[in-house]
Amino acid sequence: MEKFICTYDNDETKYVQICNHIKNLIKNDELEDGEKLPTIRSLSDFLGVNKITIINAYKKLEQEGYAVSKMGSGTFAKKRDFNISFKRKYSEIFKTYSKEQLSKYIDFTGEVVKGDNFPVDVFKKVLNEVIDRDGAEAFIHQESLGYDGLRKSISNNFWHKSISIDNILIVSGAQQGIDIVSKALIDVNDNVIVEKPTYIGALSVFKWRRANILEVDIMKDGIDINQLEEILKKTKIKCFYVMSYFQNPTGISYSEEKKKRILELAQQYDFYIIEDDYLSELIYNEKLKYKSFKALDHNDRVIYIKSFSKIFLPGIRLGYLIPPKEFKESIISSKVNTDISTSSLMQRALGYYIDEGLWIEYIEKLNCSNKKKYRLLVELINSKLGDYVQCNYPEGGLHIYFTLKSEGMDSVQLFYKCKKKGVLITPGVLFFKNSKDGLKSFRINFSEVTLENIEKGIEVIENVLKHS
Amino acid sequence: MEKFICTYDNDETKYVQICNHIKNLIKNDELEDGEKLPTIRSLSDFLGVNKITIINAYKKLEQEGYAVSKMGSGTFAKKRDFNISFKRKYSEIFKTYSKEQLSKYIDFTGEVVKGDNFPVDVFKKVLNEVIDRDGAEAFIHQESLGYDGLRKSISNNFWHKSISIDNILIVSGAQQGIDIVSKALIDVNDNVIVEKPTYIGALSVFKWRRANILEVDIMKDGIDINQLEEILKKTKIKCFYVMSYFQNPTGISYSEEKKKRILELAQQYDFYIIEDDYLSELIYNEKLKYKSFKALDHNDRVIYIKSFSKIFLPGIRLGYLIPPKEFKESIISSKVNTDISTSSLMQRALGYYIDEGLWIEYIEKLNCSNKKKYRLLVELINSKLGDYVQCNYPEGGLHIYFTLKSEGMDSVQLFYKCKKKGVLITPGVLFFKNSKDGLKSFRINFSEVTLENIEKGIEVIENVLKHS
Repeated sequence: MEKFICTYDNDETKYVQICNHIKNLIKNDELEDGEKLPTIRSLSDFLGVNKITIINAYKKLEQEGYAVSKMGSGTFAKKRDFNISFKRKYSEIFKTYSKEQLSKYIDFTGEVVKGDNFPVDVFKKVLNEVIDRDGAEAFIHQESLGYDGLRKSISNNFWHKSISIDNILIVSGAQQGIDIVSKALIDVNDNVIVEKPTYIGALSVFKWRRANILEVDIMKDGIDINQLEEILKKTKIKCFYVMSYFQNPTGISYSEEKKKRILELAQQYDFYIIEDDYLSELIYNEKLKYKSFKALDHNDRVIYIKSFSKIFLPGIRLGYLIPPKEFKESIISSKVNTDISTSSLMQRALGYYIDEGLWIEYIEKLNCSNKKKYRLLVELINSKLGDYVQCNYPEGGLHIYFTLKSEGMDSVQLFYKCKKKGVLITPGVLFFKNSKDGLKSFRINFSEVTLENIEKGIEVIENVLKHS
Repeated sequence: MEKFICTYDNDETKYVQICNHIKNLIKNDELEDGEKLPTIRSLSDFLGVNKITIINAYKKLEQEGYAVSKMGSGTFAKKRDFNISFKRKYSEIFKTYSKEQLSKYIDFTGEVVKGDNFPVDVFKKVLNEVIDRDGAEAFIHQESLGYDGLRKSISNNFWHKSISIDNILIVSGAQQGIDIVSKALIDVNDNVIVEKPTYIGALSVFKWRRANILEVDIMKDGIDINQLEEILKKTKIKCFYVMSYFQNPTGISYSEEKKKRILELAQQYDFYIIEDDYLSELIYNEKLKYKSFKALDHNDRVIYIKSFSKIFLPGIRLGYLIPPKEFKESIISSKVNTDISTSSLMQRALGYYIDEGLWIEYIEKLNCSNKKKYRLLVELINSKLGDYVQCNYPEGGLHIYFTLKSEGMDSVQLFYKCKKKGVLITPGVLFFKNSKDGLKSFRINFSEVTLENIEKGIEVIENVLKHS
């Protein structure tokens, strides 16, 4: 209780000072995420202040997203930043190292697409064609939904016209999609379900939005439905954020059965599914058929987000979103408030690129190159890493996710040891709400590494694991 | 009091139902923005429920941004959408009308830059040079701050190297700048000061962020400092959003004296200034010297946001931001969470464009064309509109703001009457938090209208005003 004592300053009302003091306790880890705060009576007695002062302090904490109160059971601390120290160090490496420094590593982190497969000349030609065709128009605003030509290309080429172009909103990549959907749907302290583990960029957006994040474990064919139902029975959920294919980081894809079940639950318990479809083009096993949540949805429960940046080139910053009717208008306003619209020229160029069949051509080439890397990697895992790690084979996508078998070394240590030997991997801690959870896992992205370096890199990892 | 009676439904806790009922009262204008809600005791007596039920209902309203409680004086309704009906109709015109339909109007609303002055061929050449120079790199991610070449161009050309390139963050236009700054700075129910009237896009962002917006009247040389001080004495302010030159919509520019005084107050009362510098290049009177808040700031109190979209071409979506040290990291994370980064190719092209001196050349041409239009408009106002309207002459920028002298017609009526005769203006109601405030004013943007049409358009407005 002693830690709650704070020194008062006459310039500020007491309840604000108590609130700030508790905020600092939370920030400095003196209060854990989810730890129960003292009851109002006990804290007011202890600090010798009026009860209303504590009520107001707790209210303010809650408003600012540092606490959640649960009817009948009290008020609980809520951490805004999690696992900040290692994450910061990790991202510093990519921020502060020059390209030259990074190029000395075998880089399995896959944060930066190197563009070796990118048809620069073709795209340059497309840009010129578009400028010649559209003139200054190419650099001018378009409708709030985005350039209609691109929306047409998307509807024709990816949805066999089953989605009207009025229901497609162009966004500046999937990250922006998640951000504007959050703004339109999620209020402070709303409950959001995510997969455990999940994409860190989505976690951050929900944290910034001050949502309560609930994690549900991932199994081989999607999240654990029993866990999900347990939560739904007890808690009102606003939405569920899901990557339907080659989930980041685990690489799993949802079975059709599970997708259907989750859609039923969404209808029954009145929540929405934010489907982040970022990699579904990259299927290496033809038996794995593509069917999104969106395609199976009969109750308008899905907000579908598609990124072109991940698979094409990240600097292009393009994606699109299909909103449910209920949120269409608020999602569009949210987009306008966020950045008015997405780069006009790039939208036109991508539309042209898709219409001319260049997109499919590019994806096929990409698939062919990635498939080779994937197969080599699977072979190497079997022959070299089998004693040390467990993993699922995603049969698509850009990465494989591993769990360490031994108790000896955690994945942060593995990261540093591999880094010393010139290999970069992504430790699991980056994908969980709480850092402790990811210490036994790591991710390898193979798409940006040459066949030769995949072989070398796996050897390094094998050696590190062998001597741990 | 009767309106507070709600019918209960057994599936939901009572406090949630009462909260939802009051939310509907607010949405349906049965409770005004700022109207005091009944005291907890009186409402609990009236509804025959426990006090704690009302306390919880009010708490929930507040959390969701539908109410503000003020210590010692009670809880007050807070409207989230304001003046929605006319604003919606107004924006529908621009959304639903085709370009062809709009081209039949003399359009003084200036929402869409037509690009007649835009050097398409030059820019096309620049794009090609950049792609040839950088290859696939041109389409790839860059540092989180943005492409360093562009940051260098900005520091060298606009700040004589006085701002380090590490303190420049590239953003996708000023709107995004305002959005990411809000995310980093503003919490639910934080107090934000805006000019009255102000830019609607900023108002929306602050509303979405659930801030409390306080308006301060604008005078000929900036906001009313007395009003500002009155607020500061009573209320803790987070930030002040200001357009330092050719304010939108009033066209006024801040005197150096006022800028200095506001900077002093920011230091004294610990708030930040969000400076939206969107048009300062367009000065038509050489006596009006350019000096931003940022340039006068010695205490790191200014978040400077510069748009290139407004003056260049809107579809390019580029701008930059200079954050104070205190918020630099959180503003950068906010950018990453919002859309990771801004279109890489466009950043490179703009950097090249600026370095080659093409930017200055373009601005000079633009200034020359705008100056002619501005002078003609001033002449026409003096000779034709003087009896009906009052206005200040901004001596720069893209628009003039008028106040109607007569009591007869309001500016929404004027809008519809002019529209019937083929002329589009922007009524003042779009620039105020509360719709009633803008009924006597309107804005004319002259930059996208030909000299001939300026003359015709003003004649139409004169005729409408004469017969009102």
